[in-house]
Amino acid sequence: MKERTPEQHAEKMKKKQAAQDKIMATKTAEKGLLIVHTGKGKGKTTAALGMVLRMIGHGKKVGIVQFVKGAMQTGEKTVFDAFPDQVTFKPMGEGFTWNTQDRTRDIASAREAWDEVKRMIADPGYDMVLADELNIVLRYDYLPVEEVVEVLTARPEMKHVVVTGRNAPEALMEAADLVTEMTLVKHPFRGGVKAQAGIEF
Amino acid sequence: MKERTPEQHAEKMKKKQAAQDKIMATKTAEKGLLIVHTGKGKGKTTAALGMVLRMIGHGKKVGIVQFVKGAMQTGEKTVFDAFPDQVTFKPMGEGFTWNTQDRTRDIASAREAWDEVKRMIADPGYDMVLADELNIVLRYDYLPVEEVVEVLTARPEMKHVVVTGRNAPEALMEAADLVTEMTLVKHPFRGGVKAQAGIEF
Repeated sequence: MKERTPEQHAEKMKKKQAAQDKIMATKTAEKGLLIVHTGKGKGKTTAALGMVLRMIGHGKKVGIVQFVKGAMQTGEKTVFDAFPDQVTFKPMGEGFTWNTQDRTRDIASAREAWDEVKRMIADPGYDMVLADELNIVLRYDYLPVEEVVEVLTARPEMKHVVVTGRNAPEALMEAADLVTEMTLVKHPFRGGVKAQAGIEF
Repeated sequence: MKERTPEQHAEKMKKKQAAQDKIMATKTAEKGLLIVHTGKGKGKTTAALGMVLRMIGHGKKVGIVQFVKGAMQTGEKTVFDAFPDQVTFKPMGEGFTWNTQDRTRDIASAREAWDEVKRMIADPGYDMVLADELNIVLRYDYLPVEEVVEVLTARPEMKHVVVTGRNAPEALMEAADLVTEMTLVKHPFRGGVKAQAGIEF
């Protein structure tokens, strides 16, 4: 694997950098991106939270809508609360009833969360909107994929939208500017370790 | 793909949840995890930053050592500065000289950053240590993989360590509790869009 000497690597890296610089010089468009984090691995929501952290650091404003409320309490709210002028956090999906199988109620809950996302996308006050676990809702047909893709595609030019969750629908991935798939290589749950604060939630 | 009805999905999810609850009940061990984010996709450092955000939210303390200083300024420092009692950020790797090919200087720089990581791992004040882009340094043999794996494996029991960067060495992945590979599916740079604040840096 390491057939090159470090010096050759450095030389290769230098050339690569020069080539990249040249390409980047031609990339002048700044626009809002539609970003999708999917796959079965860890890190979909976590990577989105990292983007939120960076947006805060750049003085930008972020709206977050959580489509599926987890059983576990999340630690991130404390951090969001430290930046009340920059982060609006809407933990929706309270009505999700995977256990009681009340589909009507789930659809209403999904619709309510989606309306909040649409409001944030339309509101010029937000630089980024994070629709956390929206893919799950789409997977269960609680919202029509066509409507969601249409709204996301027609978003204001400078608006970043991040969508997370397993099983991102094909149409959404098609519409996205950036799709990252998180692949699970190794997971501690298989080794007898329970979910822990700061790592899993 | 969606051969089941939503009700059947819900039923399946319910059963899956019950099975997971049962498994989780047997997982009582709480221990510090060695976590590796690798792969060519976006989100390795970003997902680590999301973990940092969550740790902050849980009142935990995090030490961050940046092994390779990027050309771009990062926004995250502003956020870290808001939690001075919880986050120690050490942007090392200033000396990295991919362009000038001064291998001796790079090795010294890598060693200095690694010493800082070791200090943080030994310091009971830190709940998590993030060694950002350590994999890059290992890839170039600027630090011996064996030494790094030995120190990380022998870390205090409750200490979480997160290592990021492409090309994680096999021995490190073997030693890790959790390995996530970020796979690039689609990237906006290919479409003429430049790197933007909050997204890329």
